[in-house]
Amino acid sequence: MFDVKISGSGIYLPPRVETSEELVTKINKSLDWIHQKAGVFERRVSDIDVDQMGAIAGKAALNDGPPPDLIINASGVPKQTIPDTSTFFQKEMGLDGIPSFSIHCTCLSFIAALHTASSLIQSKSYKRILIISSDRGTVGRNFEEPESASLLGDGAAAVLVEPSDTKDRSQFLYHTMNTWPSGTELTEVRGGGTRRHPLDPNTSRNDNLFSMDGPAVYKIARKEVYKMLLRTLKETGLKKESIDWVVPHQASKKAVEAYSTVGGFQKEKILESVSRFGNCVAASVPMTMVMAIKSDQIKRNDLVMLIGTGAGLSAACSIIRY
Amino acid sequence: MFDVKISGSGIYLPPRVETSEELVTKINKSLDWIHQKAGVFERRVSDIDVDQMGAIAGKAALNDGPPPDLIINASGVPKQTIPDTSTFFQKEMGLDGIPSFSIHCTCLSFIAALHTASSLIQSKSYKRILIISSDRGTVGRNFEEPESASLLGDGAAAVLVEPSDTKDRSQFLYHTMNTWPSGTELTEVRGGGTRRHPLDPNTSRNDNLFSMDGPAVYKIARKEVYKMLLRTLKETGLKKESIDWVVPHQASKKAVEAYSTVGGFQKEKILESVSRFGNCVAASVPMTMVMAIKSDQIKRNDLVMLIGTGAGLSAACSIIRY
Repeated sequence: MFDVKISGSGIYLPPRVETSEELVTKINKSLDWIHQKAGVFERRVSDIDVDQMGAIAGKAALNDGPPPDLIINASGVPKQTIPDTSTFFQKEMGLDGIPSFSIHCTCLSFIAALHTASSLIQSKSYKRILIISSDRGTVGRNFEEPESASLLGDGAAAVLVEPSDTKDRSQFLYHTMNTWPSGTELTEVRGGGTRRHPLDPNTSRNDNLFSMDGPAVYKIARKEVYKMLLRTLKETGLKKESIDWVVPHQASKKAVEAYSTVGGFQKEKILESVSRFGNCVAASVPMTMVMAIKSDQIKRNDLVMLIGTGAGLSAACSIIRY
Repeated sequence: MFDVKISGSGIYLPPRVETSEELVTKINKSLDWIHQKAGVFERRVSDIDVDQMGAIAGKAALNDGPPPDLIINASGVPKQTIPDTSTFFQKEMGLDGIPSFSIHCTCLSFIAALHTASSLIQSKSYKRILIISSDRGTVGRNFEEPESASLLGDGAAAVLVEPSDTKDRSQFLYHTMNTWPSGTELTEVRGGGTRRHPLDPNTSRNDNLFSMDGPAVYKIARKEVYKMLLRTLKETGLKKESIDWVVPHQASKKAVEAYSTVGGFQKEKILESVSRFGNCVAASVPMTMVMAIKSDQIKRNDLVMLIGTGAGLSAACSIIRY
């Protein structure tokens, strides 16, 4: 349990909307198929790169306050291989000298970064940590893989984490994570590194695009996330009814709905953004949370559960008192 | 100050040696030029990928003990874009279910990961963290850029971090880091992400290769690292004479020597591996440290300074009591 507080938050929603009607011809599937399989009606497509997207969200989270003393990039895919994206966020925000690094576990990057930042604040290493998740998954869409191509969208969100003062009840209450490497091949971009280097003649076009076996991921996720949920409630002593909001990774409409159909949470408590913004990789969890903060759904001291799965295959769950 | 201990360590040195004589024709420079500019006489070239390299070092660090409860990949370049390399380390080590993620700030990834792991242990989030750095920089060598091409080498190293018990005096004593984004373009691999995507027709061959303005980095690094050194000594109250070993990032022979010529440390205290193994990106710091542990240079309770620069441009310095 860490005495920390999300003291600021920001979001960037690219203005260009791509409806699922526009995707029909690109992926050669009907509109009904897209709505049924992915549950995505529209998504945003960014015309600026991940660093500019993230910097807009980061600036909003700082809200004209002093600069942070650490910047963590918590995104799924980087701007480039070297340097890591945190440096580019800092550059775009007009800051200088602030320690910056990335935490990466694909769609769970934000959850892992929020836990790590909370630990770094609790251990008095830093006092004001800016976490930015910015993903532009539409760049890596493979239109020959209709299901994942209809899921991905672009977006960015950021939060500022600080120590909670004595009046606050804000806390980071609980965190758990598992990674099962039997699922490495279920969600992949095989290119971009040493395995299928861009200049290797054996690297195929599809190696550089997003690939996901959605049904296989869902099958494992449904079972493992349910077990994680039960363990979380047992270890925290919390009841489902005490959780005010569930912020799931927006893997797909079906994956989000599973938190009520399988998980047993009230439908009204489960925050959903996938239908309007798609699966924004690591940015989905903070985008969904920040939208609910901005619209006064999530209020101070509400109990919020952040939960989901990511490529790896990994699952993670955190509970915060906002 | 964190009560943690490096309780295990391992290394993987690829068996294939490439001498600088072999590079002469590839980069069209004389042997003298290579020895003068880079100070690298030979480097290792790996025939296995980063995950297998790192898993060998990771297994050695565990030394047949129980599995870790967290695996952190702290490498410069990943195996592939998604999932992150930590999952592949876990797979190659035959482990399952262990939370895994990456910390990335290029050549400083190990230093940032060791600090973060120490904080996570101090805050009782984890008890047994395995950090693995594995880099295969030779894959990204640009032979048209002779200086950086003659520097890069392959290697991996790992450490196990645990709470120190009451008898131990082992501690993580101090950490500082700065990132100056004016230096983003000084050390780059521009490809592999959303900026110069592998399938973007505007992405050039060189975008996918390592590029470094060595003299410009050295100029900034010499000044900024010296300032960081003075601040570290002031804030810790330590004298240069009290530091038993300096483990610098092995950026180049000149960069390593600067810790005595500019930094004022005794030459005998500065650990050097660049002449025989090259600049192994994020793996250089832990490889150099682990070699000194294995050869009984670094002994229990020695004061060890880990220091260096990385793409970003960033500089970091940690002091541990081993």
